[in-house]
Amino acid sequence: MQTSQRLKDLPMSAIRKLTPYATKALADGVKIYKLNIGDPDIKTPECMLDVLRKWETNPIRYAAAIGEPDFLKALHQYYLKLGFDFIALENIISTIGGSEAIFMALFSVAQAGDEVLIFEPFFANYAITAGILGVKLVPIPTYIEDGFHLPKKEVIEKLITSKTKAIIYCNPSNPTGTVYTKEEVEMLVNIAKEKNIFLMCDEVYREFLFVKRPFVSILDYFKQIPEQAILIDSLSKRYSLCGGRLGILITLNNELRDGFAKIANSRLSGGLIDQMMATKMTDVGKEYTDNVQKEYRNRRDTVYKMLKDIPGVVVSEPEGAFYIIAKLPIKNSEEFCIWMLKEFRDNNETVMMAPAGGFYLTPGKGVDEVRIAYVLEVPKLIRAITLLKMGLETYTAKGKAE
Amino acid sequence: MQTSQRLKDLPMSAIRKLTPYATKALADGVKIYKLNIGDPDIKTPECMLDVLRKWETNPIRYAAAIGEPDFLKALHQYYLKLGFDFIALENIISTIGGSEAIFMALFSVAQAGDEVLIFEPFFANYAITAGILGVKLVPIPTYIEDGFHLPKKEVIEKLITSKTKAIIYCNPSNPTGTVYTKEEVEMLVNIAKEKNIFLMCDEVYREFLFVKRPFVSILDYFKQIPEQAILIDSLSKRYSLCGGRLGILITLNNELRDGFAKIANSRLSGGLIDQMMATKMTDVGKEYTDNVQKEYRNRRDTVYKMLKDIPGVVVSEPEGAFYIIAKLPIKNSEEFCIWMLKEFRDNNETVMMAPAGGFYLTPGKGVDEVRIAYVLEVPKLIRAITLLKMGLETYTAKGKAE
Repeated sequence: MQTSQRLKDLPMSAIRKLTPYATKALADGVKIYKLNIGDPDIKTPECMLDVLRKWETNPIRYAAAIGEPDFLKALHQYYLKLGFDFIALENIISTIGGSEAIFMALFSVAQAGDEVLIFEPFFANYAITAGILGVKLVPIPTYIEDGFHLPKKEVIEKLITSKTKAIIYCNPSNPTGTVYTKEEVEMLVNIAKEKNIFLMCDEVYREFLFVKRPFVSILDYFKQIPEQAILIDSLSKRYSLCGGRLGILITLNNELRDGFAKIANSRLSGGLIDQMMATKMTDVGKEYTDNVQKEYRNRRDTVYKMLKDIPGVVVSEPEGAFYIIAKLPIKNSEEFCIWMLKEFRDNNETVMMAPAGGFYLTPGKGVDEVRIAYVLEVPKLIRAITLLKMGLETYTAKGKAE
Repeated sequence: MQTSQRLKDLPMSAIRKLTPYATKALADGVKIYKLNIGDPDIKTPECMLDVLRKWETNPIRYAAAIGEPDFLKALHQYYLKLGFDFIALENIISTIGGSEAIFMALFSVAQAGDEVLIFEPFFANYAITAGILGVKLVPIPTYIEDGFHLPKKEVIEKLITSKTKAIIYCNPSNPTGTVYTKEEVEMLVNIAKEKNIFLMCDEVYREFLFVKRPFVSILDYFKQIPEQAILIDSLSKRYSLCGGRLGILITLNNELRDGFAKIANSRLSGGLIDQMMATKMTDVGKEYTDNVQKEYRNRRDTVYKMLKDIPGVVVSEPEGAFYIIAKLPIKNSEEFCIWMLKEFRDNNETVMMAPAGGFYLTPGKGVDEVRIAYVLEVPKLIRAITLLKMGLETYTAKGKAE
């Protein structure tokens, strides 16, 4: 019995495709340092978990489709505190994770066959969601040598056709760690204005910043392009709530907002418990975010320095988020990552990374790169990068690198 | 700025479209008996809520994309206990509510433009999900006079074209309360076999049965059509976990199963807390389900008898689930439902129902019907149906019914 062609055509998640090899290694008693997925080890704020511990609501009824009123109010407070006082409660919709926010945004701006520009390398799951929706992602290359910063305006404009409906970018960027400058963000806003297309930004890593310059949000330009700007956000990383599925969409475009609500109604509800828990975000103090930022800066410094010192490895210093792309002195990073899980052991330990090929659309690009999520404590990261270094040496010595 | 045409074309949820009128009435201090949505008032089992109260896991990490292993094991136990010993753990995937299970199933069997047969009236949100996916639902009418039971085999077969990829049915049926007989289910299995198409059944209401004959599940025929059968299930109603977003897909077709996993990976994870809570389903005793069933039987009896006694109202006795379709002696049930929310008050109370037009695709069908979800205690139901009766009288007296 044949499944649909679109199911067959769907790419496998680049982040998760090595899972079967990891499962096997774990079953064999191997310890794996998991740097393949951005699932942080930082603790969720206790004030949120206390909501669970004092749980009384019964039954576990549907949540409001666009988000529980108290949760939306808490989100509203968060954005007001950031200074975006033009955002009304009605402009905010909560989604089932950032994943659903991306789904709703892409569906709402593009027909099947339409094009959306994206900077390459990009968060691999965008491609799967676009695949489900029949939207063609058009990659705009960026380069490790430039710290993955944006190309010139002409390069981007040249790729805009009558089918282009939007530009999507991620700031700070997963998987590169790049934080775009004011000039870069303004360039994108101007292109959106001049070409009359949507501009959507995924700012899930907004608080993970290692540069001194102030963060330039798409929200800073919402009033300039009120009909065209869409913010995609999530609490997953900010409060270590990945399994809470707490995404956000913000737009000042009422037609779009009502469209998001229609899609939200079609799946009835997000998680009630998760939203009630997350309502406590207003009680999380600045010291929580500051500590998280400090911790990730240490991790970034550790990983970046160690990787830079491995012969043949090329890296660019991440400015934000908690990822780093590393170009390795090997031919095929997917084969290498599988080999690390299947064969390489040191003291019965190994390391798991995401092959970066899945973060590119241009054929052949990224095949010698990996994405590393530095979501472990510094001592564990040191051990993990040491394992990577040893693995590279063994792999090369065995003649597998070419 | 124009949104995509497919967003504009998306129908509004028939179940939720009256929400703005209800919100206004509530703000005015009106008490509303909500019979418009299947959000049960039955208590969630305490053993599940105890998982929250004893919560220790920190951080709230991603759940496994296809479902937390312990949750999948609990689900597996449930189906084994029902006697379906051929189901392996690997055949089960957990989804973000039954809604996502429907989405994944439709995406996986049909391309945009393909057709899926469905018995009308049907759960309205199927149409929105099909709309998102570009799948054409082809309605097969059933009639209140026949208790909404299935038509003859020829009637169904005549609608099958080269584009037909599947038949989907809901048993016990939302919104009709019909429980299909062995002969009916076997007829569908035979059609799937002979026409080589998928057969998918939504059995979310499996435990809500008011007929003596044993329930005939699609699982009873899984071994006959292993490549073609798909079960859609959910814990929402069974354990009053609507806001837990706990759906299930079961198939013996490995290609399909791997496809579901690809889609699941694209949104990374369902809710961790919800799944860990629901793992306790193995601790819920038979007396819980028995009590729920007894309670709903009383409610069914109350609502059915009261509706039957209202002059001009036509109903068929529900055999399962917790819905009843009522044909009202009015021209347009949507206008009537809005009027009930906007204008009708008795002792500052009114009742909210779902206009049934949204449960039909055939133009003009169901426009004089409403769907009533009997999800309130008997005394409240008595008051709610009394309000409906009074509303109908006033509406008719005002000359609005025609």
